[in-house]
Amino acid sequence: MPSHTNKRDLPDQSNMQHDSIGRLLIKCPDQPGIVAMLSKFLFDHGANIIESSQYSSDPEGGDFFIRLEFHCDDLHTKREQMEKDFDHLANQFNMDFQFTYGNERKRTAIFVSKETHCLMELLWEWQSGDLKTDIAVVISNHENAREYVEALGIPFHYIPANKTIRQEVEKKQIALMKEYQIDLLILARYMQILTPEFVAQFPDQIINIHHSFLPAFIGARPYERAYKRGVKLIGATSHYVTNDLDEGPIIEQDIERVDHRDHVIDLKKIGQQIERRVLVRAVKWHLEDRIIVQNNKTVVFH
Amino acid sequence: MPSHTNKRDLPDQSNMQHDSIGRLLIKCPDQPGIVAMLSKFLFDHGANIIESSQYSSDPEGGDFFIRLEFHCDDLHTKREQMEKDFDHLANQFNMDFQFTYGNERKRTAIFVSKETHCLMELLWEWQSGDLKTDIAVVISNHENAREYVEALGIPFHYIPANKTIRQEVEKKQIALMKEYQIDLLILARYMQILTPEFVAQFPDQIINIHHSFLPAFIGARPYERAYKRGVKLIGATSHYVTNDLDEGPIIEQDIERVDHRDHVIDLKKIGQQIERRVLVRAVKWHLEDRIIVQNNKTVVFH
Amino acid sequence: MPSHTNKRDLPDQSNMQHDSIGRLLIKCPDQPGIVAMLSKFLFDHGANIIESSQYSSDPEGGDFFIRLEFHCDDLHTKREQMEKDFDHLANQFNMDFQFTYGNERKRTAIFVSKETHCLMELLWEWQSGDLKTDIAVVISNHENAREYVEALGIPFHYIPANKTIRQEVEKKQIALMKEYQIDLLILARYMQILTPEFVAQFPDQIINIHHSFLPAFIGARPYERAYKRGVKLIGATSHYVTNDLDEGPIIEQDIERVDHRDHVIDLKKIGQQIERRVLVRAVKWHLEDRIIVQNNKTVVFH
Amino acid sequence: MPSHTNKRDLPDQSNMQHDSIGRLLIKCPDQPGIVAMLSKFLFDHGANIIESSQYSSDPEGGDFFIRLEFHCDDLHTKREQMEKDFDHLANQFNMDFQFTYGNERKRTAIFVSKETHCLMELLWEWQSGDLKTDIAVVISNHENAREYVEALGIPFHYIPANKTIRQEVEKKQIALMKEYQIDLLILARYMQILTPEFVAQFPDQIINIHHSFLPAFIGARPYERAYKRGVKLIGATSHYVTNDLDEGPIIEQDIERVDHRDHVIDLKKIGQQIERRVLVRAVKWHLEDRIIVQNNKTVVFH
Repeated sequence: MPSHTNKRDLPDQSNMQHDSIGRLLIKCPDQPGIVAMLSKFLFDHGANIIESSQYSSDPEGGDFFIRLEFHCDDLHTKREQMEKDFDHLANQFNMDFQFTYGNERKRTAIFVSKETHCLMELLWEWQSGDLKTDIAVVISNHENAREYVEALGIPFHYIPANKTIRQEVEKKQIALMKEYQIDLLILARYMQILTPEFVAQFPDQIINIHHSFLPAFIGARPYERAYKRGVKLIGATSHYVTNDLDEGPIIEQDIERVDHRDHVIDLKKIGQQIERRVLVRAVKWHLEDRIIVQNNKTVVFH
Repeated sequence: MPSHTNKRDLPDQSNMQHDSIGRLLIKCPDQPGIVAMLSKFLFDHGANIIESSQYSSDPEGGDFFIRLEFHCDDLHTKREQMEKDFDHLANQFNMDFQFTYGNERKRTAIFVSKETHCLMELLWEWQSGDLKTDIAVVISNHENAREYVEALGIPFHYIPANKTIRQEVEKKQIALMKEYQIDLLILARYMQILTPEFVAQFPDQIINIHHSFLPAFIGARPYERAYKRGVKLIGATSHYVTNDLDEGPIIEQDIERVDHRDHVIDLKKIGQQIERRVLVRAVKWHLEDRIIVQNNKTVVFH
Repeated sequence: MPSHTNKRDLPDQSNMQHDSIGRLLIKCPDQPGIVAMLSKFLFDHGANIIESSQYSSDPEGGDFFIRLEFHCDDLHTKREQMEKDFDHLANQFNMDFQFTYGNERKRTAIFVSKETHCLMELLWEWQSGDLKTDIAVVISNHENAREYVEALGIPFHYIPANKTIRQEVEKKQIALMKEYQIDLLILARYMQILTPEFVAQFPDQIINIHHSFLPAFIGARPYERAYKRGVKLIGATSHYVTNDLDEGPIIEQDIERVDHRDHVIDLKKIGQQIERRVLVRAVKWHLEDRIIVQNNKTVVFH
Repeated sequence: MPSHTNKRDLPDQSNMQHDSIGRLLIKCPDQPGIVAMLSKFLFDHGANIIESSQYSSDPEGGDFFIRLEFHCDDLHTKREQMEKDFDHLANQFNMDFQFTYGNERKRTAIFVSKETHCLMELLWEWQSGDLKTDIAVVISNHENAREYVEALGIPFHYIPANKTIRQEVEKKQIALMKEYQIDLLILARYMQILTPEFVAQFPDQIINIHHSFLPAFIGARPYERAYKRGVKLIGATSHYVTNDLDEGPIIEQDIERVDHRDHVIDLKKIGQQIERRVLVRAVKWHLEDRIIVQNNKTVVFH
């Protein structure tokens, strides 16, 4: 992409435009009057709702989820008071909540192994200005992506990895996560398993792409197993990482049709296209604060 | 469908369950505070919002659209007062609005010509209890659907039609629309053109299925023309009927892949499957008050 | 379907048209010259190839599959000699092969339990003349489909079934299979497990529809499990039945998108649409002799 | 893509593997015995058919199309004799035919304007080794792609273009086509119209990507018009270029779902993803000699 140097200046400009945009994500027990309370609260603080999505798992005794995007002049001076005022209401309604702000881009790390198609797609979208994040660092157990990543001005760290040195590797990785102040970690076909200790530090902050239509073909070599089983569709799944391998909350899935003529190598090629788009969609929704996790499932407000 | 007789008793039962459900559909100029006002209004009237979808064409000076579904005990005794109270607010915000109630099923007429696949699909969905409407009458310019329609206990009227007797035909049809108190008219592959006078009586109340991916192949014989053009996908479009042929607000579209081996007869067969599902989706969304028309386009709250 | 009585006369007419159509399905070790031999053989017997599809799993030492559809005048008088002449060649090339003829419609039995949507879809397609088979009998462990099936002139047998009386049940079913000279058995959401003894009698002749995207959610209650897992797509799979539950050769699969708002009942509704079309596609391909089974997988010549 | 330098060495290696692969594409009036003749011809010349696809528009008096891929040792020494021998048969059956060889990669030129997403996708696929062609030159009426293209070692020519200097521009372009011995010209969002004189020099050799679902939105600004019409799906179409704007033989089409929330800028973003994959598919099929043009339509042997 020829013009990437210019593109990287773009965030600062768009930050200015996003200065007055805030988002409020809430999960709480359902009860009458929540929306009335929330909309009054925002109105009273001079905020105008520009997008609102809600979901109630069951109007009688279920959970209530809402995502509000609002516009508010002088938000950066008002936000402290707004958050403080909200605390009281949140307690009253027993809410889990999160304010985010348009001018605070999440800081992202990408982990990748030898296959770079998912990394490339993420960088492509980022260069086009469609991935509203700061890609702070790329970490890989292979060297082959270094040249391309560094050419974009992104730090690249090579950390060789295998089972036997896992603890040592993760120690280095966690140090980098802290150094780069990472909010989101994307496993863009990173072929190493993370320990529970690692995962526990980033709850609902690690997004993985698994190269099968989960829960089919959990674990290793899904394309080989799909070929052997003779499926007529193959898929990919993006999900938050938990301690159970490939069992975390699913964010997005997609599939493509295949037939008897497609050998394992063809499934991999077709699958790469699916992986690319499924991972990018999940990452975008996360960056736009569209996802709420509940009971190992996701509510995604498109 | 063996059990249709029992199924037809189902609406009365479900009406009881739907007694306390109301919907409010609104279109107005956007301005701050609309959601706060609406949610406060419903809360003050003892109504709990169970589903809410909104859209703003432009937060600065655009149009605002919202669909609210709410639960309210004793709604049938409260609704008159609620509507009366709302009038004042509606004026203040310059709102177009519409209250509908879960216990008032829309009354539907279906017009059909010789090909009955769309009619069959509608009746199938209706028998399964998935089409929340009373199918009050079926009108056709062919006799071939009579036996099946009447077996379901639905009145069937045969009105021969052609260009030269159009006015006379429509006079009879309009008389039946009034007699059966029709709220929604579905053109389920009815191959006659309606006059502007007819259409004017049912604004945004006539849903047609056109057998192409509009605006491609407007008018007659779309499958023949699709074949001639050598397209690789064929489609169907459901839309509200206006005076401009096949130019009304599009509600839903879908497509299927075809290839060089598919002759016109194959396109028709494949197309029938698309027509069936596209029409049913559009009709369901209309019956659930999910559609707002603006500028010859539709806002559809899924 | 109003005109089914007339439609049922149609097969005899179309049989006359199909009198001169034959098909040859072959599976053998790959080697040079097979196509040359086959096309010469057909040409020498006055048969003109009108459709040909082939697949080689590996040009070096793999398996070769071919489906030939041919036109031949006076086929009914020539076919005996043709088959006899072919035997010699088949031995030479170590072929598994099968001749079928356009005027010999397969005889089909449908097994169904309480949910009739797949049965209805099959009957719909059959009435439209798109399912080239004689539906000889419908067998169910419920009575609810009887009225509709018998109205179409198809024999309906009610055989109550459960685990404890399985052998007795299957004895009756096998007797009926013989009585009606069944070539193809469709399990159209038949919720009883068949014994290995039953399955062994109908190799590659029993088609099942499983209500999940196999190999995900093998076994019972797939929609409930899909809901619990929080998948974003649900699917259905048609496959030949083998002794391993839901492990037989997959013929066709398809999916639909779902989201967090879809409860189990919604998944079932959406799933029914997928099941209907996936089963019909598989049955059509089987009836048109488009499927060859090899190594628990299918080669499907579309 | 980090490893593009190594990847570019790959063609030479794979050429060696492809040395013994040939393809034969034929279009002729249908008649009995064609396949027998062809397969005997190849067998007699020591060639083994590894893939065969055929299509007959009508067994009685229609056109016959076939694509044969074969393996033949020492093909480079035998091919001259093979082609010579074939001439006689071709005359006898009144065939249009074309031999191509696995070791002769087509030479491709890409024309592009300001938007580079289609160019990028083509280069990506080419670097991955999935586009079996030599990209000989990129020509643009903008400078912004130069850096990226030249970094891959591909010549880049900047030729400013507009209506008034069209003849002069095309003169330069045609000179470059000759200089680089171009077999295939890809218009990867090249926003200038080509003259009939230009097009006439490259029959069925220019592939364009149009950013709509043709024949909807022929001509300029299709996304703006799709937005105005309120369509629920947008698409892209790849086709061979003829003198009639956007009326050439369609090779491939695809679509994505959109809704009322998508403004023109969103349609463009979504559309870019469709354009990328639709163009790449069409180009791949062309490079693999899978397309035959007849009556302004394409037969595509997948």
